[in-house]
Amino acid sequence: MPSRSALVTEAQIIRRIHLLSSKASPSSHRVILPQGDDAAAFRVRPGFLMLVSTDALVEGIHFSLMYFSPEELGWKALAVNLSDIAAVGGTPLYFTTTLALPKTIDRTFVNGFYRGILQLANMHDVVLIGGDTCSSQKDIFVDVTILGDVKPNKVLRRAGAKPGDSIFVTGELGGSAIGLELLTNYPGIARREPLLTGRHLRPVPRCESGRFLAENRIASSMIDVSDGLSTDLHHLCEQSSVGAIIEADKIPLPRVNSKTARLLTHDLVNYGLNGGEDYELLFTVPPSMRPTLPRDIFGLQVHEIGQITRRSGCRIQQSGRMRKLLPAGFDHFEW
Amino acid sequence: MPSRSALVTEAQIIRRIHLLSSKASPSSHRVILPQGDDAAAFRVRPGFLMLVSTDALVEGIHFSLMYFSPEELGWKALAVNLSDIAAVGGTPLYFTTTLALPKTIDRTFVNGFYRGILQLANMHDVVLIGGDTCSSQKDIFVDVTILGDVKPNKVLRRAGAKPGDSIFVTGELGGSAIGLELLTNYPGIARREPLLTGRHLRPVPRCESGRFLAENRIASSMIDVSDGLSTDLHHLCEQSSVGAIIEADKIPLPRVNSKTARLLTHDLVNYGLNGGEDYELLFTVPPSMRPTLPRDIFGLQVHEIGQITRRSGCRIQQSGRMRKLLPAGFDHFEW
Repeated sequence: MPSRSALVTEAQIIRRIHLLSSKASPSSHRVILPQGDDAAAFRVRPGFLMLVSTDALVEGIHFSLMYFSPEELGWKALAVNLSDIAAVGGTPLYFTTTLALPKTIDRTFVNGFYRGILQLANMHDVVLIGGDTCSSQKDIFVDVTILGDVKPNKVLRRAGAKPGDSIFVTGELGGSAIGLELLTNYPGIARREPLLTGRHLRPVPRCESGRFLAENRIASSMIDVSDGLSTDLHHLCEQSSVGAIIEADKIPLPRVNSKTARLLTHDLVNYGLNGGEDYELLFTVPPSMRPTLPRDIFGLQVHEIGQITRRSGCRIQQSGRMRKLLPAGFDHFEW
Repeated sequence: MPSRSALVTEAQIIRRIHLLSSKASPSSHRVILPQGDDAAAFRVRPGFLMLVSTDALVEGIHFSLMYFSPEELGWKALAVNLSDIAAVGGTPLYFTTTLALPKTIDRTFVNGFYRGILQLANMHDVVLIGGDTCSSQKDIFVDVTILGDVKPNKVLRRAGAKPGDSIFVTGELGGSAIGLELLTNYPGIARREPLLTGRHLRPVPRCESGRFLAENRIASSMIDVSDGLSTDLHHLCEQSSVGAIIEADKIPLPRVNSKTARLLTHDLVNYGLNGGEDYELLFTVPPSMRPTLPRDIFGLQVHEIGQITRRSGCRIQQSGRMRKLLPAGFDHFEW
């Protein structure tokens, strides 16, 4: 006995999703029940393990529409989930979206959101197979669940790093946190730094690199840098029951012009250590596999930043001094 | 560079989930990467289709802590998702939870929520394999994604109903909406009507019945009654390209004492038609399979309420008169 008036109805949203996501692909050919039934159904590749992960974005916590376009929000909601599949060396296949929207939201937002999410989905050949749309009182909630698969003997875990393994990271670290600081504190300057703000607004999940490292058995352990290098390195070391030494001047940092750098509240290296949301891959390589690791993976540079140690705890070597590295990145429940 | 203070940290929540969900089961034996890695991994039963569905509960829209206990909220968050797997005749196996909580929420809530969700999970032998916990500004947001499987030749869809098929529903309809009205308008009376309020607070998903109807090929189409009979019957008819006639006095309604009934804003039959959130199964049975349908399925009564027609549109026969039945139930985006 609810009332019958809203700017966007669920039926309209679902029709739009169907319209936008009709592209055919190998994964879409395995979909048996597409959206429209109570559950979606799909065929599984025989002999593969299924992978599942879920990550949410909450307005006022993870994003603000002051600086996120609907397209960017859609892109990022999927990107952070693709990154989780990348981190275990898997192939992403399907995803569901849950959108809770205040009634004031208009059709432009919904269209933009799905344009952004489906643009990235098409790039990775993943198929939207279900979801839920509902109202919220005030804030926008976005939740994506990603499904993927992986060969059982190729899956990469956080556990697996051994003393003597080298620690590597893809791409650069810190750009996302710097971009966020510019977006929130210096919107005018943010507009002139699209490379930095882009790291925050449209992160690129490293699916190809993750799969390459897993399928060629180069890495012994892996995690994606979502919470910040210092925190995610601790996660990896704890799960592997090892320690680590990082060399501060080997951390790959984004280029920031001196005028912009002067505005920032921290040294660049601090963003690289604790910034978070870069969605690069942090992985370890045993000495025996070290020669097989290329300098870049399909064009994406990899950088050696330290070593796994038998002694537990994480340490950092900076300006000739060794100090303890505390996990000072993102805690999902605290930001 | 976030601050380090919160009543509940994500690490505490994750430890608690591990502690609470350590029960062994056939599905848990197939889990390869449990929680703690970037994605969960599990083995798939060969020859089965995977099923996935997702449903969210948003504070102030789907529930209020004025009348929901944390346990009930946890139970319901999973129940509505189990119901989606029941509706396609599948077996639920795994689920993920996303919880966005304001920082004012305390440990008691989180404990209660997981107690409730895991109580129902254990009853259905489904295993929590992942999730995301994060902050929200003000409202609680709960999203569950359920994974299940089904034999490819046994899956039930909304499409499949044929003219001449009988329309059935399990259990009773309307109790949830009546319970909700009592909870919101007459909390004192609500306390004396646990059967009605229980339908709203702790709905029982009909997984065994759904699987029975699918595995014995008794039903030709099926949907769960989440939005209300009138709306869900329209969904089923649209997908099957048929129409339907419902007999009003055959709709199974809950027993409501006359004193309570007088407080309600609608006739009982209106709750049965449009109330929603009962999570019963609405299904069609071809004449040839009619004799094989028992009067109850493992103790759950089934009621014949009408017939599928070639003529499109839904109609209702009430007090000797036939009228059009409009979809007047729940629209997720409008309540």
